[in-house]
Amino acid sequence: MALSTLLIEEAVAAALKEDLGHGHDATSDSIIPTDLETTAVLRAREDGVLAGIVPALSAFTILDPDFDINIHKQDGEKLTSGDDIATIQGPARTLLTSERVALNFLSHLSGIATLTAQYVEAVKGTNAQIVCTRKTLPGLRAFQKYAVTCGGGKNHRFGLDDAILIKDNHIAVAGSVSEAIKRAQDYAGHMVKIEVEVDTLDQLKEALEHKIDTVMLDNMGHNNLSEAVSVIDGRVLSEASGGVNLETVRSLAESGVDMISVGALTHSAPALDIGLDIDL
Amino acid sequence: MALSTLLIEEAVAAALKEDLGHGHDATSDSIIPTDLETTAVLRAREDGVLAGIVPALSAFTILDPDFDINIHKQDGEKLTSGDDIATIQGPARTLLTSERVALNFLSHLSGIATLTAQYVEAVKGTNAQIVCTRKTLPGLRAFQKYAVTCGGGKNHRFGLDDAILIKDNHIAVAGSVSEAIKRAQDYAGHMVKIEVEVDTLDQLKEALEHKIDTVMLDNMGHNNLSEAVSVIDGRVLSEASGGVNLETVRSLAESGVDMISVGALTHSAPALDIGLDIDL
Amino acid sequence: MALSTLLIEEAVAAALKEDLGHGHDATSDSIIPTDLETTAVLRAREDGVLAGIVPALSAFTILDPDFDINIHKQDGEKLTSGDDIATIQGPARTLLTSERVALNFLSHLSGIATLTAQYVEAVKGTNAQIVCTRKTLPGLRAFQKYAVTCGGGKNHRFGLDDAILIKDNHIAVAGSVSEAIKRAQDYAGHMVKIEVEVDTLDQLKEALEHKIDTVMLDNMGHNNLSEAVSVIDGRVLSEASGGVNLETVRSLAESGVDMISVGALTHSAPALDIGLDIDL
Amino acid sequence: MALSTLLIEEAVAAALKEDLGHGHDATSDSIIPTDLETTAVLRAREDGVLAGIVPALSAFTILDPDFDINIHKQDGEKLTSGDDIATIQGPARTLLTSERVALNFLSHLSGIATLTAQYVEAVKGTNAQIVCTRKTLPGLRAFQKYAVTCGGGKNHRFGLDDAILIKDNHIAVAGSVSEAIKRAQDYAGHMVKIEVEVDTLDQLKEALEHKIDTVMLDNMGHNNLSEAVSVIDGRVLSEASGGVNLETVRSLAESGVDMISVGALTHSAPALDIGLDIDL
Amino acid sequence: MALSTLLIEEAVAAALKEDLGHGHDATSDSIIPTDLETTAVLRAREDGVLAGIVPALSAFTILDPDFDINIHKQDGEKLTSGDDIATIQGPARTLLTSERVALNFLSHLSGIATLTAQYVEAVKGTNAQIVCTRKTLPGLRAFQKYAVTCGGGKNHRFGLDDAILIKDNHIAVAGSVSEAIKRAQDYAGHMVKIEVEVDTLDQLKEALEHKIDTVMLDNMGHNNLSEAVSVIDGRVLSEASGGVNLETVRSLAESGVDMISVGALTHSAPALDIGLDIDL
Amino acid sequence: MALSTLLIEEAVAAALKEDLGHGHDATSDSIIPTDLETTAVLRAREDGVLAGIVPALSAFTILDPDFDINIHKQDGEKLTSGDDIATIQGPARTLLTSERVALNFLSHLSGIATLTAQYVEAVKGTNAQIVCTRKTLPGLRAFQKYAVTCGGGKNHRFGLDDAILIKDNHIAVAGSVSEAIKRAQDYAGHMVKIEVEVDTLDQLKEALEHKIDTVMLDNMGHNNLSEAVSVIDGRVLSEASGGVNLETVRSLAESGVDMISVGALTHSAPALDIGLDIDL
Repeated sequence: MALSTLLIEEAVAAALKEDLGHGHDATSDSIIPTDLETTAVLRAREDGVLAGIVPALSAFTILDPDFDINIHKQDGEKLTSGDDIATIQGPARTLLTSERVALNFLSHLSGIATLTAQYVEAVKGTNAQIVCTRKTLPGLRAFQKYAVTCGGGKNHRFGLDDAILIKDNHIAVAGSVSEAIKRAQDYAGHMVKIEVEVDTLDQLKEALEHKIDTVMLDNMGHNNLSEAVSVIDGRVLSEASGGVNLETVRSLAESGVDMISVGALTHSAPALDIGLDIDL
Repeated sequence: MALSTLLIEEAVAAALKEDLGHGHDATSDSIIPTDLETTAVLRAREDGVLAGIVPALSAFTILDPDFDINIHKQDGEKLTSGDDIATIQGPARTLLTSERVALNFLSHLSGIATLTAQYVEAVKGTNAQIVCTRKTLPGLRAFQKYAVTCGGGKNHRFGLDDAILIKDNHIAVAGSVSEAIKRAQDYAGHMVKIEVEVDTLDQLKEALEHKIDTVMLDNMGHNNLSEAVSVIDGRVLSEASGGVNLETVRSLAESGVDMISVGALTHSAPALDIGLDIDL
Repeated sequence: MALSTLLIEEAVAAALKEDLGHGHDATSDSIIPTDLETTAVLRAREDGVLAGIVPALSAFTILDPDFDINIHKQDGEKLTSGDDIATIQGPARTLLTSERVALNFLSHLSGIATLTAQYVEAVKGTNAQIVCTRKTLPGLRAFQKYAVTCGGGKNHRFGLDDAILIKDNHIAVAGSVSEAIKRAQDYAGHMVKIEVEVDTLDQLKEALEHKIDTVMLDNMGHNNLSEAVSVIDGRVLSEASGGVNLETVRSLAESGVDMISVGALTHSAPALDIGLDIDL
Repeated sequence: MALSTLLIEEAVAAALKEDLGHGHDATSDSIIPTDLETTAVLRAREDGVLAGIVPALSAFTILDPDFDINIHKQDGEKLTSGDDIATIQGPARTLLTSERVALNFLSHLSGIATLTAQYVEAVKGTNAQIVCTRKTLPGLRAFQKYAVTCGGGKNHRFGLDDAILIKDNHIAVAGSVSEAIKRAQDYAGHMVKIEVEVDTLDQLKEALEHKIDTVMLDNMGHNNLSEAVSVIDGRVLSEASGGVNLETVRSLAESGVDMISVGALTHSAPALDIGLDIDL
Repeated sequence: MALSTLLIEEAVAAALKEDLGHGHDATSDSIIPTDLETTAVLRAREDGVLAGIVPALSAFTILDPDFDINIHKQDGEKLTSGDDIATIQGPARTLLTSERVALNFLSHLSGIATLTAQYVEAVKGTNAQIVCTRKTLPGLRAFQKYAVTCGGGKNHRFGLDDAILIKDNHIAVAGSVSEAIKRAQDYAGHMVKIEVEVDTLDQLKEALEHKIDTVMLDNMGHNNLSEAVSVIDGRVLSEASGGVNLETVRSLAESGVDMISVGALTHSAPALDIGLDIDL
Repeated sequence: MALSTLLIEEAVAAALKEDLGHGHDATSDSIIPTDLETTAVLRAREDGVLAGIVPALSAFTILDPDFDINIHKQDGEKLTSGDDIATIQGPARTLLTSERVALNFLSHLSGIATLTAQYVEAVKGTNAQIVCTRKTLPGLRAFQKYAVTCGGGKNHRFGLDDAILIKDNHIAVAGSVSEAIKRAQDYAGHMVKIEVEVDTLDQLKEALEHKIDTVMLDNMGHNNLSEAVSVIDGRVLSEASGGVNLETVRSLAESGVDMISVGALTHSAPALDIGLDIDL
């Protein structure tokens, strides 16, 4: 996934305004002369996968477009502790003002990419793709979904609008899997995919009688998943969800499912430690 | 800390629009009749501390002000897995549309409160308060700072504007600790506190010659911290920072410092598992 | 499609502010007393199909939530000239201030629904669905797409993000239909449909060798379309586009295509004449 | 009328964000390399009058300020099918991402200019000017009013605030034409014009007893208009409105009225067919 | 002039957010219990004219719609020191949080109304109306223009768009008064008034040869103004501007001009002292 | 204080849009050719202190980044009537469009700086600093606080969030000065200062028993202030407030207080007369 600069600039400007509060950086404005130029390096302080270099650098260029920037690592690249990510030259005062916003984007998004890469590595050699969910942090969904792809994951739907995911509650209201699917098909345009969550093999078989795209196999263990995959027999895509962690994911993947969705990628990824070393 | 409803409503409405994307919930709009009413319960699925009940409930009431809501747990209360947090009665379609946004706020903020409470517990009986940092997720700072207080932590400054924190780079530019403090004092109004980061006892002694409020003792171990606390002798507040985790925090606290700042509270807290059980 | 009230209120408030300019209604504010109550009726002045009753009524209730409203026709219903659509009772001054914004939404959206219904009627009995395009008026896409469904049409993708549509220029850059599809498949998540525009039967055959969802048959006449439909043989959905008007659409539909996309629905639909009759 | 670039950039950025939805162009981002440069030509596909070249080109430059642009036709110029309007050179990916937004502005606004020019042509040689109304599409008023002037029309008031137009309902509330005018005069500043809608010659004569600027002669045929114009005798401006179309407008104009207002210019103008031919 | 509640609510919410900064009221949130109700009175502390009661009260109701409010004085009414303006009953915490924003609107706008009333009083019995200018404080224009009318003044144009005012620089570029007027007439719609600034009687006579609405007589003393008024002889409106203060305004008015514009009304009016007395 | 360019650009763009209303400058757009370049000088028309040169110049560069600008006076410098402040070269049309917005910022902010400098001059030689309050004009607080520092004043807190100021009403609710302070201390983070308003010496003595930072001595005359200062004896900062004007301020200062807060600086400063002389 590529993230539009239009969204990046809006989000980064908002983050800068959040940090500036009533409108100034009391520390740097008082201590750093306006004409002092310096050089700084974004540097990895632990191993991981990079994500968010464009928003991070925007934190500097939005306040001063004349920064001279040299990018050494691209999003999606592996980082080893100590690696230089980018070199930034420009006014020292702005550099210090923007530092925290830049690092907040970069360490959070790289944290997501790093965790995703661990899941992807864990299922290596199987058929399964690691996908994210809508369990994202408010206001950061597009950024987080982008970071997942930097870590080698794939994106599930981005919102309530761009795909249909029929869950247990929808089925309960509709009265049956079939009725829920029928209502969704009547509503959806031809470019909208339909996924159905099933909890049992009976529900799965009912779902497979309809023209759908994906089934979500919720909270099943390896054995049930394997049987479900066998029932599906390649007619639709299969997604395992629920109870996924780095210990369980390989076993789930070996069931043959096409996707494993992991909420933790976006709601619980720890930040990756990245710093800004300033040459003063 | 109390969070203004004005900010809550703005952030929650933005999160709903983020999730609605091009403007609709394709699944619920197609399957759930507009006149179906139902009851749902926000329920803890693991132990922790609650934070964010107001933004979570706003996700429902912003879309429909007529929801009937019964709150069972307040922010800051301990949760045991299975506890009912709030009961919500109203239109089933809106309930399903808002569910994910509500849970995204609630599980993230409760995750922060829960992690904070663990740090607070770890230093129980010492002098030390657990405080947060500006290492927050873009756009969510006020919410995250609020969640820290729900977990028993205290807030450090909210942004670049509301307090002065003189760091190593500021000192390097100014030429000395004393010169940096002097410039800050000239700039700051009388209601702005000044904190100075020191790396050595010599810097600490230089800082203490000036009228400042707090010293940050960065990346010192227990012994150095103890000595620093002894040098300070209650003249200013002391804050330990750097290399803090649940294993090290007690030892740091026993040095006698007043505050220990923990970036992980806001940049790396895993979500607390909270669900919405709908009675359909 | 159902349109979130969150989007409706935002767009209608923006339209009111656009009309109020520097902030007042010079005519009504000077002439109409604030305490005068009156009744008005939204009334069709020509035959058509209704769309937009919620945004239209929001133009009144956003300025004064106490209007007493009685809705006689729902979106999607047929209107005969003279039909009452809704009765509105409340302050006369606000009623006159909001009138134009209400009618601008209602007559534009009903115009789209009416034109769509004509296309749907024209292809009645065939397999073809009438679908809209991204040829929408800036800022009004969600509203226009909604109006299309009120007229019996279906929605194509809502934006650049929610589905992949590989056009001639994409194929030209990729070098071949196959290469373009392969790149799209690598990028897309599993919930994103892929459509490919083809101009020739050779391109069509190449496209059909891949796992795609829809082919767009661009600017083909009835005969070529029929042959293409026969080649496709139900393996993917087929969409005819280009050169569609009320004279040609039936012939295109009889080729057996699944969808016919019509840009005119959203870029060239004339307004439906609807008035507000005020009882003063 | 000239349209401020401040408004143009805001509206075009909003339109791009509307099209990008959750934040990316799935098709172009996946298929078009970031370093591919190309040339494209905005080209008329039918005869008409150009309007909107600045917003159209802004759709490209907002996403990438380095596009190299060559403008061949200015707003207000006649277009013959096949005419080159502008040549654009720059990154192919951005060019494809922005294409639809650019064309949506250009074809809609040129459609308005073209329809306006037809009305202007129809009344050529008479005294009458063609003017627009407030029957505009929500959010697009300034753009549409601008397009009317590109087609040779003139602007009526832009909103509820910048001129007073006393309509039948205002007169009904006030009790008489004279009382309504008196209230408006008391309220209005000295730089605000006052227009009064009259339905009969008696109302007209009453209106002419006051210091007003314009009378609107609503829904009168040629004969009544001629008589009204004769009664007015140049003392105020006269505007014919209601029931105006390309068949009736000449006859109305020959009555001698100063202005004929046409709602269809902005609520029912079909798009002008303009394409972007990309050289790939 | 009446000010739309839509603008009021937007501006007041923005002012509250400006005051809340990072999102809370540290003092009241810590000290005032949420369930404490109280009564407070907005009370004049000096004599003047009231303006801004609606935005002032909105500062309370935006944060809590359940305030019980009793209005004793309406905008435009004279205030004597000690007068009760409104009684407000509701939650004490919110009352204290909103107090400053409410008073900032009320004392500023009432200050403008009070100063305006002094100018109006000074010219009582003459033909002259007191009018405001575009010399307003950024973001507050509509509010300030409204306050001017509360004080008995009239509004000049609201912005660059709603009337034409040809100044010396415009004339210099055009080459002559006549050419400037001609260009403006070609551009302007029929509902736009044209005013021309003249510095000499020759310019005045040239201006009067054209169909314009108002002449601005800039920086002329009583005698020149009288002569100009005599030359104009009622054919257009006349406006005196420049060098106006409470000492000179009567003499200027006695020249017979129709309007005297006073920048000080909006750029230099001192606040009127109004307080909130809380019954705790 | 330094004001972030991010805030400046947002506020100035908003002010331009406020002035452009429906989106154009009817006068300049009609009369001034787009290709005419000219030079203009911002020039003081009375003596004072400059503030706001960056927002003033932004009014030009936001509409056209290619203006060539030469700054002769910096914020905080004294101005003598006739002084050139900045020379601006660029398109004449844009220059005239932006003129009023530029001057509105510059003359208002310079008016504040000038008034502040008068207060600062009046207390010269005493211990007292002149500080501003939260009695600011809605939407302009950061700008006004900045202007105060240009005039030599210091800033009090910026909002409700960045410092605690316990007032009489808070004390009344808490029941005692001590209880109010205790609640505030429990709430506040360690970087938040606490100020307490006291009306009597008894309250003062009670306040001094707690760890607070500042006392506000409200509405005391010189003698009471002197006694209070003597009681305080340097333990906390002291601030005099209430009844301050240019006649009384010296006497208050001679009491030995540390700060004197003056609401008039921001709510009642008259504009400084500054003009734009255009060379046409």
